[in-house]
Amino acid sequence: MRLLLLLLLPAFAQADEGMWLPEQIPAIAQEWAERGLEIDAEQLADPLGAPLGAIVSTGGCSASFVSPEGLVATNHHCVERYLQFLSDGENNRHQDGYVASARERELNVGPTARLRVVESFEDVSARIQTGITPRTKDAARHELIERARKELVDACEQEADRCFVVSFLGGSTWRLIRTRELRDLRMVYAPPMGVGQFGGEVDNWMWPRHGADFALLRAYVAPDGSPADFDEANVPYRPPHHLEVAAGGVDEGDFVMVAGYPGRTGRHKLGSELRWAAEVSLPQGRELREQVRAVLQKHADATPEGAARLGAVINGLSNGIKNREATLTGLRLGDLVSQKEAEDAAFRAWASANKKRGKARAKAFVELEELALLRLRRARAEETANWLGRVADLLSIASRSVRWAGERSKDDLERDSGYRDRDRPRIEASFRRLDKSLHLPSDRELFELLSARYVAQPEEARIPQLDAWLSELGGREAAIEALYAEPALTGVDARLALLDMSSAELAASADPWVRLAVALEGYRAPIREAREAEAGALQRLRSQWVSAKAEWHASRGLTMYDDANSTLRLTLGHVTGYAPQDGLVAEARTRLSGIPAKAGAFPFHTTQALLDRIPEGPSSPRADPALGDVPVNFLTTLDVTGGNSGSAVLDGQGRFVGLAFDSNYEGVASDWVFVDAKTRTICVDVRFMLWVMDGEPDAAWVLEELLD
Amino acid sequence: MRLLLLLLLPAFAQADEGMWLPEQIPAIAQEWAERGLEIDAEQLADPLGAPLGAIVSTGGCSASFVSPEGLVATNHHCVERYLQFLSDGENNRHQDGYVASARERELNVGPTARLRVVESFEDVSARIQTGITPRTKDAARHELIERARKELVDACEQEADRCFVVSFLGGSTWRLIRTRELRDLRMVYAPPMGVGQFGGEVDNWMWPRHGADFALLRAYVAPDGSPADFDEANVPYRPPHHLEVAAGGVDEGDFVMVAGYPGRTGRHKLGSELRWAAEVSLPQGRELREQVRAVLQKHADATPEGAARLGAVINGLSNGIKNREATLTGLRLGDLVSQKEAEDAAFRAWASANKKRGKARAKAFVELEELALLRLRRARAEETANWLGRVADLLSIASRSVRWAGERSKDDLERDSGYRDRDRPRIEASFRRLDKSLHLPSDRELFELLSARYVAQPEEARIPQLDAWLSELGGREAAIEALYAEPALTGVDARLALLDMSSAELAASADPWVRLAVALEGYRAPIREAREAEAGALQRLRSQWVSAKAEWHASRGLTMYDDANSTLRLTLGHVTGYAPQDGLVAEARTRLSGIPAKAGAFPFHTTQALLDRIPEGPSSPRADPALGDVPVNFLTTLDVTGGNSGSAVLDGQGRFVGLAFDSNYEGVASDWVFVDAKTRTICVDVRFMLWVMDGEPDAAWVLEELLD
Repeated sequence: MRLLLLLLLPAFAQADEGMWLPEQIPAIAQEWAERGLEIDAEQLADPLGAPLGAIVSTGGCSASFVSPEGLVATNHHCVERYLQFLSDGENNRHQDGYVASARERELNVGPTARLRVVESFEDVSARIQTGITPRTKDAARHELIERARKELVDACEQEADRCFVVSFLGGSTWRLIRTRELRDLRMVYAPPMGVGQFGGEVDNWMWPRHGADFALLRAYVAPDGSPADFDEANVPYRPPHHLEVAAGGVDEGDFVMVAGYPGRTGRHKLGSELRWAAEVSLPQGRELREQVRAVLQKHADATPEGAARLGAVINGLSNGIKNREATLTGLRLGDLVSQKEAEDAAFRAWASANKKRGKARAKAFVELEELALLRLRRARAEETANWLGRVADLLSIASRSVRWAGERSKDDLERDSGYRDRDRPRIEASFRRLDKSLHLPSDRELFELLSARYVAQPEEARIPQLDAWLSELGGREAAIEALYAEPALTGVDARLALLDMSSAELAASADPWVRLAVALEGYRAPIREAREAEAGALQRLRSQWVSAKAEWHASRGLTMYDDANSTLRLTLGHVTGYAPQDGLVAEARTRLSGIPAKAGAFPFHTTQALLDRIPEGPSSPRADPALGDVPVNFLTTLDVTGGNSGSAVLDGQGRFVGLAFDSNYEGVASDWVFVDAKTRTICVDVRFMLWVMDGEPDAAWVLEELLD
Repeated sequence: MRLLLLLLLPAFAQADEGMWLPEQIPAIAQEWAERGLEIDAEQLADPLGAPLGAIVSTGGCSASFVSPEGLVATNHHCVERYLQFLSDGENNRHQDGYVASARERELNVGPTARLRVVESFEDVSARIQTGITPRTKDAARHELIERARKELVDACEQEADRCFVVSFLGGSTWRLIRTRELRDLRMVYAPPMGVGQFGGEVDNWMWPRHGADFALLRAYVAPDGSPADFDEANVPYRPPHHLEVAAGGVDEGDFVMVAGYPGRTGRHKLGSELRWAAEVSLPQGRELREQVRAVLQKHADATPEGAARLGAVINGLSNGIKNREATLTGLRLGDLVSQKEAEDAAFRAWASANKKRGKARAKAFVELEELALLRLRRARAEETANWLGRVADLLSIASRSVRWAGERSKDDLERDSGYRDRDRPRIEASFRRLDKSLHLPSDRELFELLSARYVAQPEEARIPQLDAWLSELGGREAAIEALYAEPALTGVDARLALLDMSSAELAASADPWVRLAVALEGYRAPIREAREAEAGALQRLRSQWVSAKAEWHASRGLTMYDDANSTLRLTLGHVTGYAPQDGLVAEARTRLSGIPAKAGAFPFHTTQALLDRIPEGPSSPRADPALGDVPVNFLTTLDVTGGNSGSAVLDGQGRFVGLAFDSNYEGVASDWVFVDAKTRTICVDVRFMLWVMDGEPDAAWVLEELLD
């Protein structure tokens, strides 16, 4: 019960919690000015000005320009796949990192890499809601919204590289975001894996931490300044803004902020949704992933080829398992579910007391809750079948082909997102890439595991079309034999051919994978339609919930921030440690001297060269005299989530002082509830980045550019 | 290399390291007076005066008198077997603890419990070495020493309850210790298991810690004051001295000392012995224990009966595994092996530079090293066979019977220790107790595991007599079937009958267990004789090594302490935390408020009653205002090892302020090397003890006696 106060405090004291839209900064700036924010609030409110105009996205990660010549800083773990692309039998850059000894030696990181620079924002709420009245049926509401979104995107992409229509506050407001997409990115500097991701999965979400989780890219454009595919003739991109690097970093207690693109949070979800997550979906998701991982691990351990193909998937699963464990631990320790429910109750009481709209709101909230739980329950029933498609790569290919054929028969604007003409190159690329990741022995064993789980489910959780397919093939075991005996889809041409087949042709196919995909599509297609009505209802109901909550905050003189939605956000806080447990204090910063004690076998396989330099660290120019060493990583109260990886950490003047790269274990549950005393963001200190680069004579010119 | 300084520093700075004999205190008292030691050094030098006269031993643990009426404080984990003895179908005192609501309700803890009160010490070095000259052969040297020891013990035990002859400084000096053995101990107060051993094996050696690891016993004697078996007519023992309880405890930074009976350390072992431990015996011992534990755990999980019988053994194995892991981690982190070898080299250089004795010493040191390693190598070869006897309870019974018959044919004084007439009751008792622990299904599977390991060994590591026995029974599998089909020794009478059989009768026995024991004895008997010569040589060589080392210390103005040998030692230090890793600080103390976050399922199954009282803790009289709560456990720089469990922690005035109950994980390696910055002893705060008892109205009278 003492923790209850802790949770409710932020609402009154405006603690460090909050993923703010730039435009919200003026409303909260006064308090932060007292706590170290020096830069003008109006300046920070401009997402296209300095410094926020320097903040960009790679699609999955955040990044920032750090020189006028298009140098980009992000996390090492964000460029890992680029380093893989740059590795071959001769050069293992994934393992060894890369240092371009001159600009000419910067290496293109592959055709799929992108860097998104926002060009404009536009409120399109009115356009999205055109034609929608309180009487519009939910399915029609969804359709109207989706059509408006597509039309907006299409019109926008006539001129811009890539456009997004994003909903805010549960679908109350909408924005059109127009971006320039840079397509020629080159590797400038990446430390070796054992330096950049020192501690790997073992240290993931852990503190103390000693990772140099950074890398430097450079964006290139055509000589005329327009985005272009890789070409020798391309020239460095000159960004509208770039961050100044403050080589002195920040110290314990200092103000910091992070600007980046957080992906998704559930801070405005219902308490009952959190309870479902805590009691059903998180524990089940963990258990299923553990089973899948055990199978894959066995195959990875068996052969070097298995290890190479499955390594990344296993890491992803481990990450997912640890994330669920951490979230569950965080929720349990803070009794956060009860607190969230208590907060909901207080909010609902306030909302339903409203004379004019109380009754309608109360009704809508009940409807929202029922709908949300209905969807969660259905998701649970379908989980095993859905996993079949996730783990069986050929089923995934076949299913996408079946969807593609179905959507292709519609007008481009009517299609579901991801299945429009503009999406075909991406689909083709992924069909081609399959050769690199497909590993039939483990694929088959996973299919056996999941199909056994499926048939063990009670009748009501079964899918008739899937059962029919199974009996058509003579039962589960015969079906698996048919699928895996000599799958034609292992050939890239056979896969690509699927994309040109019509629904009728696919339905007539004798390929067991295609037949399975057609069967599953027979189940999914009608559900998708039902879901469109649900999606309309959810938008209607969730927007009421979230906007009423914003009113509730305002009624108490507070500013509410929205859940993360992959748009630019700013979070403000300071550098400080925390108490992981009674009797234990996590210091705000780590030192070079902490590295040797951890160094050893993978994932703590740092380089001997780095170890050899550590004794000189305290006397190097990168050292902090107060700390007596070079600061390595530091903890902050900043509010981040997935997508924030690679976000620049800024000081009070908006200068670059490091990169956010992880949450602490106790902070993983902050996707749902932010707990001021425990939630921390782990950052790499700019002084450690510079010190690591100091050890590479070939990188001297990059250092010069950074610090210029 | 920086750590090398750290290790060598203590030798010059006289850090907190040291298990001092009381008589050594005056030599080190001045420095400690400056650091908080208030009591007079001469008073502390008297092991029979106050306060050290209040410190006693239970055989495996330390304890202390805390009232003039014979109240004894020790750890909860030291009285666990007493609580098991007091448990039956009706009362699970092992689980629930016990509170005597009045002196009449104090419960006798069983016939085997003992409390040893030292009555006198006597230097018997001259007597032990009578007849030994530099020319005495090693085997004769051993025999002379052993005979002298036995004669001294026998003569002493004509008058005293129990006497010990103990060697110091590698066998350079010897003492006769005469003790009174109190045999009627009664349970006065023990918290429930979930309170006393909160965190159990999971938290073992861990910090932060929140255990109320204490219990109170009372010693009883016959009305005439003499030790006596349990009798209703017995009266509380009036100890010569008891400790005053300082209810205010100690705070961070305060001076503390621990008085108790540390068992064994290897601080004066050779660097090469430490290397062997680090590279061979510790890793192998861990691996073997892991295999054995896996088998036992399977059986414990299978049935409640298995769980009950095997629980304690599994815990012991887990402890052994974790101990080896912790030691290996500690040795590796500090690179302690290299440091120890460097220290050895410095010492050897000093010793061999001595004009008069340098050459002889250098030769002796080489001989010592060769002999020590020979014994270690042999131990490794015999390990699997020895484990057969450890895990197969019936083999252990049979082997002891065979040894017993062999020794019984000798004159009592000639026999090996443990096989004299005075030992028979203890052997009988253990033969009877077997019914409680024997669990044939797991016993058999372990025999299968270990015998398979044995036969897989190369020829040179095999034992001819064991191989002969195996082929006599038709191979390993047939032998196991014969052993476990219907073992006659499962009957207690059959076991006891073995003790009256002669060697010839046993050799003629058809029982497969006895035949196996006879075969193994055929191998071991001659080796035992060879070992007697080795033991003589070791005493000769090790005493030169350790006494030269003492001279080396003295030459630098330092006082050297001896390795632990289960005699009374005093260690001085202070209350302070440490840095487990760079970026993490272990605070010196934990609080009540840390308990709820850990509370849950076993082994964190504290009581609801305790949890309910926690919110009132900060306002209770047991709280420390500076800490804002009741202090629960605290860390000290005290130097302890196994045997110190239950040791009283004393403040600068010699008053009782808590009990030592564990080492930290980083400190486990201190059995070999004490690292000032990392080695900590974990203690329960007297204020937490009192607060726990405050919650038991029935214990009010005990609290009054404690604080009187």
